[in-house]
Amino acid sequence: MALTNKIPIPPSDLPRVVIIGGGFGGIKLAQKINAKQFEVVLVDRHNYHTFQPLLYQVATAGLEPDSIAGPLRKQLEGRKHFFFRLAEVEFIDPSLNTIHTSIGVLDYDYLIIATGSKTNYFGNKSIEMNAFPLKQIPQALDLRSHILQNFENAVIETNPNNLERHMNIVIVGGGPTGVEVAGALGELKKNVLPKDYPELDLSQMRIILIEGQNELLAAMSEKASRKSLVYVKKFGVDVRLECFVNDFDGEVATLSNGETIQTYTVIWAAGVMGNVIDGLKEEAIDHGRIQVDEFNKVLGYNNIFAIGDVATMKTEEYPMGHVMMAPAAMQQGELLAKNLRAIENTEELIPFKFFDKGSMATVGRNRAVVDLPGNINFAGLLAWLTWMFIHLVQIIGLRNRLVIFSNWVWNYFTYDRGTRLIIRRFTPNFKRKKEAVGKKESV
Amino acid sequence: MALTNKIPIPPSDLPRVVIIGGGFGGIKLAQKINAKQFEVVLVDRHNYHTFQPLLYQVATAGLEPDSIAGPLRKQLEGRKHFFFRLAEVEFIDPSLNTIHTSIGVLDYDYLIIATGSKTNYFGNKSIEMNAFPLKQIPQALDLRSHILQNFENAVIETNPNNLERHMNIVIVGGGPTGVEVAGALGELKKNVLPKDYPELDLSQMRIILIEGQNELLAAMSEKASRKSLVYVKKFGVDVRLECFVNDFDGEVATLSNGETIQTYTVIWAAGVMGNVIDGLKEEAIDHGRIQVDEFNKVLGYNNIFAIGDVATMKTEEYPMGHVMMAPAAMQQGELLAKNLRAIENTEELIPFKFFDKGSMATVGRNRAVVDLPGNINFAGLLAWLTWMFIHLVQIIGLRNRLVIFSNWVWNYFTYDRGTRLIIRRFTPNFKRKKEAVGKKESV
Repeated sequence: MALTNKIPIPPSDLPRVVIIGGGFGGIKLAQKINAKQFEVVLVDRHNYHTFQPLLYQVATAGLEPDSIAGPLRKQLEGRKHFFFRLAEVEFIDPSLNTIHTSIGVLDYDYLIIATGSKTNYFGNKSIEMNAFPLKQIPQALDLRSHILQNFENAVIETNPNNLERHMNIVIVGGGPTGVEVAGALGELKKNVLPKDYPELDLSQMRIILIEGQNELLAAMSEKASRKSLVYVKKFGVDVRLECFVNDFDGEVATLSNGETIQTYTVIWAAGVMGNVIDGLKEEAIDHGRIQVDEFNKVLGYNNIFAIGDVATMKTEEYPMGHVMMAPAAMQQGELLAKNLRAIENTEELIPFKFFDKGSMATVGRNRAVVDLPGNINFAGLLAWLTWMFIHLVQIIGLRNRLVIFSNWVWNYFTYDRGTRLIIRRFTPNFKRKKEAVGKKESV
Repeated sequence: MALTNKIPIPPSDLPRVVIIGGGFGGIKLAQKINAKQFEVVLVDRHNYHTFQPLLYQVATAGLEPDSIAGPLRKQLEGRKHFFFRLAEVEFIDPSLNTIHTSIGVLDYDYLIIATGSKTNYFGNKSIEMNAFPLKQIPQALDLRSHILQNFENAVIETNPNNLERHMNIVIVGGGPTGVEVAGALGELKKNVLPKDYPELDLSQMRIILIEGQNELLAAMSEKASRKSLVYVKKFGVDVRLECFVNDFDGEVATLSNGETIQTYTVIWAAGVMGNVIDGLKEEAIDHGRIQVDEFNKVLGYNNIFAIGDVATMKTEEYPMGHVMMAPAAMQQGELLAKNLRAIENTEELIPFKFFDKGSMATVGRNRAVVDLPGNINFAGLLAWLTWMFIHLVQIIGLRNRLVIFSNWVWNYFTYDRGTRLIIRRFTPNFKRKKEAVGKKESV
C-alpha cells in the first residue's frame, strides 16, 4: 500500500536537497548548507537527534532520554528554506528523482543518504529475535525496563535455575559499546542493586562480556585494550575472549566454546552494518554499505550522495573505508555542504580527507582509556575526565550539556542512579516478549 | 487464569500489613509504621511513586517522567521488614485474609487499600475510548506524543477540515488539572510551537476549556475562580462554562450547547472516582468510594482499612467526605501508622481530623491562585512563587527537587521546553489508535 501523494512542501525556485537521517552527518550538513542557494528537506523517522555515544547510560538508568536527544526542529530553528518531515523512507526511485515514504512521495534535486548504521546480527534470526540491540532510544528504554523487570521477578522466583536467568546479563561485543555497558552494569551491580534488592544475593549476578577477537577494544591501541580488560574485571565482569555466541533462544545463550549461560538478557553490541535504503543499483552497495567517491557521491549516480556510517569511501589511507563513528560523519557533512555549493557554482570540488581525532571509552567511575592521534594513549582518571569533557562539548545544546553534567555529578557523589523507572509495560515471569517498537530498525 | 501460588516473602513472626498502592497515602504509612512491630508488604503496579500534581507538565513537554517519579524501592530503602512487590491486584478475599494479584496470592493480617482514584467517564464509552485521561505517567507520555504527532501531521495536511482537527485541543473539566493543562498548552502555543512550526498559522489553533459549573475552580474561593478565568483567557483559551461534552468519536466533540468541535484531542479532566478493588461487601462501597469510619476502618471489616482518594470518611465537618487530594491521604496514612500500633498494643485509637492546608492552581508563567485556611486568598506573581515553592517542598527526594527546579528556571528564561520528543510510536494521519498501556487504569 505505497502512498503516491506528494508530501506538501511550500513552493520555491531553489534546487531541493533532501537529507535522509538527522544523525551527526545529516544535521551538520543541514546546518552548514548555503540556505540562500538550496531548499533543504530533512526526513527522519524520529523528531529528535540521538547522541548515540551516551545511549548506554539511558539503558543503564543513568540518564533520561531527553538529555541525550534534541528535537530536530529546535536544532534547525530559524533556518530559511528548511523543512522537517517526520516519515520512514521506504525506497528511492533514482529514475524519477523521488523518495517514497510512509507519508507520501518527495522529489529531490540532490539526495543525501545519511541513514547511519543498524545492528548486524550476521543472519542469526534467533539472536535477532531474542537479543537486545542498542542503537536507538526506544531500544535503550526497553532494555532498561527489561533489566529492572528481571530483578522484580527475581525476588519472587523460587526456581534457582530461573533465578540465574533473571540476574545474568550477557554482553556480546568488546568494542566501545560493549565495554561501556559492561562498566555501567558493573556499577549498578556494585552500588545500586544491593540497596534496592536487599533480599537478593547479588554475588549470584554474573555480567559476561564476550568478544570474538583476542582483546577488548581491538580497534584501539594496545594500551587501551589491556587497560579496559583490567577495568572491567575490577567490576567483576567475566570476560570471554576469542569466543562467539552461537545461539540465544531467549533463555539460554550457547557460546562457541560449548559453554551455556542461563539468561533472559543478551545485549547485542557485536556489529553494525550500513542502514541502506532500497532502490540503488546493486553495484553501489558493498558489504552492506553504500560505495561513494572522495566527494561522497554514490557510485553510478550524479545527484545522490551518502555520508557517515552508511557510506564507505575507500581511499589509499583507508582501504576499508573510514571508522563508523560520529567524527567522520560530521566532517563529511560539513564538506558536502561546501561541495554542493561548488557543484551549483560549477567550481572545483574538494576531496574528503579524514581528520582523526582519536577515540576513547569509559569503564565505570574514574576509569577510561583514550587514544589520541600521534600514538598518544592514556588511561585512568585523566582519561575519564577527558572522556567526560569531550562528550559534554560534543553534545548539541546547552540544555543537554547542563542536564547531563548535573546527572553525572549527582550520580558520582551519591553512588546512585536517579531514573530506574519501569515506564514500559511490566511483563510478569515467562512472558517477556519485547515490544515491536524496540526491535524496529528501519529509517 | 488466576494464579494460586503464594508470593514468596521471607518468613517472620510479625503481623503482616499489606499496603496496596504506593501513592501519597501508602508511602506515608509505610514510612511511619513501626518497623519493629509490623512486617510491611507494599504492592503497586508501578515500581515508582508518581507526583501527580505535576503530571500535566510531563504531558505538555515541560518535565521528563523521572523528575516527577521516585523509585519505590529507593524511597523505602533500608527499612526493616519491608518488602515491595510489583504486581496488579485482581481481587481481595476477606474471608481468607488474602489478596489475589498478577503474580500470585498474598496473605495479610491487616490490609490497607490506598489505591487512589481513577478517571471517571460517567459511563460514556465513546469518550472513554477516544479521550485522553491524565492520571498516570504513561498516559502523560501518550498525550505528549499525540499532540506532537498531530503537529507533525498538520504540516503535511492539505484538507482544512483535518487541519483544524490536528491543531484544536479540547480540555474537559475546569478543576485544577484542567486549568493547569490549559495554561501550559497556552504557553506552548504562544512560545514554543510558532518557532517549531513556522509553516503553520498558530492563530488557527484553538484551546477550548469546558466546565459544567458556572465558574472555573469551583471548589476554590470566588477570587480563585474569577482570577483563573482571567488568566486562561489571556492565553487565548476559549472557555465554555455550564457546558458538557456529550460525545467524542475521536474526530468531533459534541457539546451540550449543540456546538461541535473538530479535533483529534480531547483531554478528560472532568472527574475521578475511587479506584475500588473487587471483593469487598457491597455495603462498604458508596458512590464508587470505600466507606470508612473515623479510624479509616472499612465498613463491615475489622482488619481492612482504606486511606486517601479511594476512601470516603463522612464526618459532621465533611458530610461528603474529604477532598480527593494528597494532604488528606498523607494525614490519614500517618495517623493509621499510629492507630495500627494502638490496635496491636490494645490502646485507644485516635480519630482522624483533617488539617486543611488550602489549595492552589497555576496558569502559565507568573500566574497562580492560592487559597489558604482562614479565607486568605491571593493571586498573581506571589501566588505563582508560592505554588512553585510548595510543590518543590512536597515532592519526595532531593534529586527530583533539583531537577524540577533547574527545568523550571531553564524554561522560564528561555521560553522553551526541553523535552518535546516523540518517544512513543509515530502514527501517521488517521491511524491514531492509542496504545493500550496508556488507557489502562487498574491497580
